[in-house]
Amino acid sequence: MVPRYARPEMVSIWSQETKFRIWFEIEAHACDALADLGVIPKEAARTIWEKGGAATFDVERIDEIERETKHDVIAFLTHLAEFVGPDSRFVHQGMTSSDVLDTCLNVQLVRAADLLIADLDRVLAALEKRAFEHKLTPTIGRSHGIHAEPVTFGLKLAQAHVEFQRNRARLVAAREEVATCAISGAVGTFANIDPRVEEHVAEKLGLKPEPVSTQVIPRDRHAAFFAALAVTASSVERLAIEIRHLQRTEVLEAEEYFSAGQKGSSAMPHKRNPVLTENLTGLARMVRSYALPAMENVALWHERDISHSSVERFIGPDATITLDFALNRLAGVIEKLLIYPERMQKNLDLLGGLVHSQRVLLALTQKGVSREDAYRLVQRNAMPVWRGEGDFMSLLKGDAEVSQKLSEAEIESLFNLDFHFKHVDTIFRRVFGRA
Amino acid sequence: MVPRYARPEMVSIWSQETKFRIWFEIEAHACDALADLGVIPKEAARTIWEKGGAATFDVERIDEIERETKHDVIAFLTHLAEFVGPDSRFVHQGMTSSDVLDTCLNVQLVRAADLLIADLDRVLAALEKRAFEHKLTPTIGRSHGIHAEPVTFGLKLAQAHVEFQRNRARLVAAREEVATCAISGAVGTFANIDPRVEEHVAEKLGLKPEPVSTQVIPRDRHAAFFAALAVTASSVERLAIEIRHLQRTEVLEAEEYFSAGQKGSSAMPHKRNPVLTENLTGLARMVRSYALPAMENVALWHERDISHSSVERFIGPDATITLDFALNRLAGVIEKLLIYPERMQKNLDLLGGLVHSQRVLLALTQKGVSREDAYRLVQRNAMPVWRGEGDFMSLLKGDAEVSQKLSEAEIESLFNLDFHFKHVDTIFRRVFGRA
Amino acid sequence: MVPRYARPEMVSIWSQETKFRIWFEIEAHACDALADLGVIPKEAARTIWEKGGAATFDVERIDEIERETKHDVIAFLTHLAEFVGPDSRFVHQGMTSSDVLDTCLNVQLVRAADLLIADLDRVLAALEKRAFEHKLTPTIGRSHGIHAEPVTFGLKLAQAHVEFQRNRARLVAAREEVATCAISGAVGTFANIDPRVEEHVAEKLGLKPEPVSTQVIPRDRHAAFFAALAVTASSVERLAIEIRHLQRTEVLEAEEYFSAGQKGSSAMPHKRNPVLTENLTGLARMVRSYALPAMENVALWHERDISHSSVERFIGPDATITLDFALNRLAGVIEKLLIYPERMQKNLDLLGGLVHSQRVLLALTQKGVSREDAYRLVQRNAMPVWRGEGDFMSLLKGDAEVSQKLSEAEIESLFNLDFHFKHVDTIFRRVFGRA
Amino acid sequence: MVPRYARPEMVSIWSQETKFRIWFEIEAHACDALADLGVIPKEAARTIWEKGGAATFDVERIDEIERETKHDVIAFLTHLAEFVGPDSRFVHQGMTSSDVLDTCLNVQLVRAADLLIADLDRVLAALEKRAFEHKLTPTIGRSHGIHAEPVTFGLKLAQAHVEFQRNRARLVAAREEVATCAISGAVGTFANIDPRVEEHVAEKLGLKPEPVSTQVIPRDRHAAFFAALAVTASSVERLAIEIRHLQRTEVLEAEEYFSAGQKGSSAMPHKRNPVLTENLTGLARMVRSYALPAMENVALWHERDISHSSVERFIGPDATITLDFALNRLAGVIEKLLIYPERMQKNLDLLGGLVHSQRVLLALTQKGVSREDAYRLVQRNAMPVWRGEGDFMSLLKGDAEVSQKLSEAEIESLFNLDFHFKHVDTIFRRVFGRA
Repeated sequence: MVPRYARPEMVSIWSQETKFRIWFEIEAHACDALADLGVIPKEAARTIWEKGGAATFDVERIDEIERETKHDVIAFLTHLAEFVGPDSRFVHQGMTSSDVLDTCLNVQLVRAADLLIADLDRVLAALEKRAFEHKLTPTIGRSHGIHAEPVTFGLKLAQAHVEFQRNRARLVAAREEVATCAISGAVGTFANIDPRVEEHVAEKLGLKPEPVSTQVIPRDRHAAFFAALAVTASSVERLAIEIRHLQRTEVLEAEEYFSAGQKGSSAMPHKRNPVLTENLTGLARMVRSYALPAMENVALWHERDISHSSVERFIGPDATITLDFALNRLAGVIEKLLIYPERMQKNLDLLGGLVHSQRVLLALTQKGVSREDAYRLVQRNAMPVWRGEGDFMSLLKGDAEVSQKLSEAEIESLFNLDFHFKHVDTIFRRVFGRA
Repeated sequence: MVPRYARPEMVSIWSQETKFRIWFEIEAHACDALADLGVIPKEAARTIWEKGGAATFDVERIDEIERETKHDVIAFLTHLAEFVGPDSRFVHQGMTSSDVLDTCLNVQLVRAADLLIADLDRVLAALEKRAFEHKLTPTIGRSHGIHAEPVTFGLKLAQAHVEFQRNRARLVAAREEVATCAISGAVGTFANIDPRVEEHVAEKLGLKPEPVSTQVIPRDRHAAFFAALAVTASSVERLAIEIRHLQRTEVLEAEEYFSAGQKGSSAMPHKRNPVLTENLTGLARMVRSYALPAMENVALWHERDISHSSVERFIGPDATITLDFALNRLAGVIEKLLIYPERMQKNLDLLGGLVHSQRVLLALTQKGVSREDAYRLVQRNAMPVWRGEGDFMSLLKGDAEVSQKLSEAEIESLFNLDFHFKHVDTIFRRVFGRA
Repeated sequence: MVPRYARPEMVSIWSQETKFRIWFEIEAHACDALADLGVIPKEAARTIWEKGGAATFDVERIDEIERETKHDVIAFLTHLAEFVGPDSRFVHQGMTSSDVLDTCLNVQLVRAADLLIADLDRVLAALEKRAFEHKLTPTIGRSHGIHAEPVTFGLKLAQAHVEFQRNRARLVAAREEVATCAISGAVGTFANIDPRVEEHVAEKLGLKPEPVSTQVIPRDRHAAFFAALAVTASSVERLAIEIRHLQRTEVLEAEEYFSAGQKGSSAMPHKRNPVLTENLTGLARMVRSYALPAMENVALWHERDISHSSVERFIGPDATITLDFALNRLAGVIEKLLIYPERMQKNLDLLGGLVHSQRVLLALTQKGVSREDAYRLVQRNAMPVWRGEGDFMSLLKGDAEVSQKLSEAEIESLFNLDFHFKHVDTIFRRVFGRA
Repeated sequence: MVPRYARPEMVSIWSQETKFRIWFEIEAHACDALADLGVIPKEAARTIWEKGGAATFDVERIDEIERETKHDVIAFLTHLAEFVGPDSRFVHQGMTSSDVLDTCLNVQLVRAADLLIADLDRVLAALEKRAFEHKLTPTIGRSHGIHAEPVTFGLKLAQAHVEFQRNRARLVAAREEVATCAISGAVGTFANIDPRVEEHVAEKLGLKPEPVSTQVIPRDRHAAFFAALAVTASSVERLAIEIRHLQRTEVLEAEEYFSAGQKGSSAMPHKRNPVLTENLTGLARMVRSYALPAMENVALWHERDISHSSVERFIGPDATITLDFALNRLAGVIEKLLIYPERMQKNLDLLGGLVHSQRVLLALTQKGVSREDAYRLVQRNAMPVWRGEGDFMSLLKGDAEVSQKLSEAEIESLFNLDFHFKHVDTIFRRVFGRA
């Protein structure tokens, strides 16, 4: 975790305090179920909830015990016993450390997913608002970085919106992947603990019982979870790069909000740099990279080894905190994005009408010219414009072969911008359910 | 693609012939829709289907044309015109190359997904069959590679089964991700083509229209697709590594089938190596690695650039062909796996009863010993056994503090294997819906 | 391997024919050494060289034998015996398959490295030539995509040159990493083969003996090799992206060569797209991705397992062939790059002199203004220019606080372009050893 | 950074305090050079060293300023001015933030590399010591996890030693890669700062001037640096996995040191798990993963963008701190590794002499039997042993075809262990320069 790329809401999910609290709840819920099954005294379960519920766990004390026992769950249970007293011997009956650790990790991931889904909702809301504002703001569509044909700025944002809708669905699915609970004892056979304990704890924590847990919850679930985060981060990168392109000096169709007092460069006072979206590009690289060790974690040995654990101590917090921060930063960028329609129009006009070349091509073929010939006719009038020698419309009018097929009026009608926007409503309805 | 790791069914999806056939179908279906809309003559659409449908596209001829035009779709259309004649000018009206390329890629990925799902069904069937065969075959469960407590071999396979069920669901979802069609023209505005053409082509090809396609189908879909393959490959690796462990000389609880005539080593005639599962380990690394460039493909510039294309020429075939091969190899390994229950029992007995240490611990606590004390009592009797000094049951019986709490009969009852298997049926029902 | 991204020189290194020829040479050189040591008859070694040297190995026949024996080296030796006759029993004495396979792989990687180094020399030559052509061609330097201060186009190419010099050094080091030979027998103890055989074969093949080979040559060497390729590919990507940026419609300071007959777009005849450099961007992603499985290959089990083998069947050819193709494509792009100095000048002038803001800042501080105040003064005159309201020089002249410190002549002198180029020669000498 | 996987020596390199101290030194050294060149007063340079050198920079105060200016270097300079007074206006003359940031990062990476190299020396010393202790301790060599032929435990450690020697050389090279300094001003032209300043600062900091720095130090250097760490981590994983295998219950030839008071499992008191090496396996995954974003950082836009910065705030500390911790943990594991020669001998005997099959094969061929026939003869006597039906030597003696070629005495001589160790000294001399 890098503090400057972290929001307290997400950080707190990964704090030691939160972790021990979740451990306690898992143990205490298990005690309830064990008490109902008659395995431990009901009185003991009550005492555990009361004394443990009131306790403030001392992270440093637990660390101290762990340094001796070299085992974190035993250290916690020892500390818990300091609060609970003799009834603490009923805690953790028939359970194994992984029951606590893995169920806790999944609780944390589920909470993290909930935050991330809320973040995506903020991104989606911002995109929708700005998309409708600029539904019909003309701008040039670019393929290969080269002017292609007109689009609207709203369409760009609509594309981003539907992409983030997909990411939202992926995160909802990813949340489902990890919303499981295992209380199955050593190597997962329930030898010393009734499966009904697992069912009870799962229900209380909003999870589903893990069908087969071999002591650990299988890590293909977590691999899928972190892969979903990585894909979402890649979409963040896409939108960030779009904005970085739009803010380029020569393009300048949009700009990150630049606050009073902000300095773009220590050396060059004139600079206004897209530093937020550049930052998002870097953060996306990080979130993406965390998917790899998550996938390498899947192939644990036999019923389990513990190689996944150190990996998850990194990527559990790092991937979720970083993506949470990135999504909020992205939402802020979209919400306050400075958008310059006049500059968009100016850029649209840059190529002297060349962006209408396809329409001319199609008009010629509809007049009976073969596609091959039409392409040749259009290209020979386009290339001088490309070199800055004349504008496209005049050249077409002056081309004998073209004017044989298309009147001046017909040629002019092919340069109408609205022609390109007639299906914007169709697309908006697909994306937003309204236009 | 490495020919030795490729099955013809999957390879053929990626052949040039298949590709051009799909391109033709996309163009011809689009012509039908255009004819219905009155944009092109119905007769032309019929001619295109007839002549193009009967044609055998000449891959080398198309390559030759591409070498001149440096554009693959134009090369194809030029070749198609050689069959179709003058009506070919109605082909590709208002469309852009990406409409053809991207829709074709998705058709190929959907077909590949269908094969992979069928592969998973073969893996699942093999796992289920062998799991029931060995539902109650006792074997040692291992955590950290160290003997833990007894499980059954069927449970191991049940775990794998439910993991591959999840991968099947992931692949079904991944198939949905890429089952889209784009016929939206340059920069995706439908300026020169009616959205109804897209709807028609999509329906005919079993796809859904892409909500916003900006000339290309957005690559977050493909990133999610290849990530799902990567997670599945990681599960293949997990099961492969399990088998490799079981075949180790010192363990030898299971073995890959070794055919007559096979040679394990050119130098050491006695060897029988788990070469298939080692191979699967390597193939899994490859499939996993392809997820990365797929994710880097997401952030195309503006409406599109073409950097994704070269990546997909590699990973489209390589990831699907390799995973298809791996899943079939894995299924074969499971189907014919040599399983040695006697050796499993022998290994189970290896630790002189130590695997029952937890039961003794729990029994002591239930007799009122504190968890801390019980742990200490068990550990002091376990450590000599670990060092090969005595067997666990005798030592316990001879420990004054232990025998104060547990009678000899009680101690003996704690060493019963069936105790561990009482919930096997519960777990099987969770996995297979039957026990 | 994707045929369209492959050059025959590199492909042939990885052909079955080349592989079997190298296998033969390893075996035959080993026979020479064995004959010198008196282990096998000298006559036999001669026969093996004569008959094997004259033989044309039949790839399909070897495949056929392998299908039965399931072992590639045994299949080859069986086929070799068909040429050599009874003396073939002296071949492979005391050796293990890996001696042949691993040494062969390293021979192939060394040859591949030699080609890649030659490729880099072509890239370096192209960059040097164009750098000197444009040593003093003024162009705007950009940080964050925003105009910063003037540079020369030659400086951009000089930067790329020195970066590729570093990559050349990395590949030379990577070549050294894999230039080793192992002829050490099963598990690498030389139990059945004298270390002098290894020394002889190594010398003949231009390799060094592997210090400890445990049957396989350790894969950290190959991981380092493929990592060096991945870093080089990342530099290819950097230069490719630079060119893609320069070719953007709004920038158009340089352009990939566009041949007569080439079509930029099937739909939009006016397009001239940077498709080669976009392609290089994608190829770089692939080469980079191959470093990962190469690193996962390092941790083979005990003395060896064979999981690395399938990985190397992919990445051995794919990484080297793709990078070889990419470097040659890159060299071609640089050699024929269309460079537009007038457009560079036009873009330089775009910001109305703002690019000189730092010089004004420094001049003010040298007149005794505090850095803070100077920054404020410059920024308040820069912001209107950014918004298109006036030019920077006039605004400065009209600012009372500024003109108190700087005369009009002084202000004008701060807008001189040559000021920025006075150290170009210094930098060129650092890079090229000449200016 | 995960605190439990971090050593204070490395952590302190990455503290804010260290960073600001290095920033100060860069600025102050630059002032010296500027004073020598007559650009700023010598007195000012002295004052800056004196007051800045005595200052304790207040991290929170700098953060506070940064929150307003949104620029870290400006915030630092503002804070520095609070100590230095009016002369502070001479600080940072003609420099750009990246001059400070990038040079500082490289200073930190160089220091980190020095620590890592020292760590490797500790690993190497431990491996050498234990290798000589067990130079001739017989143990079974395993290929594919299957018993192959005898090796010594010392040979295993010698292999690891020479692998870590290579990693040491890689880290020395990686250190060289990043040991550069850039003081070249905005876009790297030295327009406002003399190249001699860079030379002076470089020399003082033990760095070399960066040949071309375009404002930033090119990131191919850092990609190569982190790739070297990733390869080293992969070697850590290899050795960790070796130990995990050796500690398996069925193998138990070596064991991590298990301290008094340590608990292997909260549920199973008998467990002694290889948790340190499992942990190293996970840490290796993390260090490996950081190479990827480092490579993606190479392709910055034009002269520079800032997307690399956030990535490096993660991986700069995380990769070096984690690898430093891992190397020290690995050294500790080796130093205290419990090694069980008797168990090694017992395992060696497990296969009833089958591990000598190659020697029998070779002996038969030397008696004139064709390789094919010899293989068949050996395999038919090996397979029953594999199935537990008899021992290899007796079966060979009883095989008519074999005994026709080899006398009983000859057969017995083929089962001699020392035969395999005759070149151990040769190998040790290759690795350690002594035997």
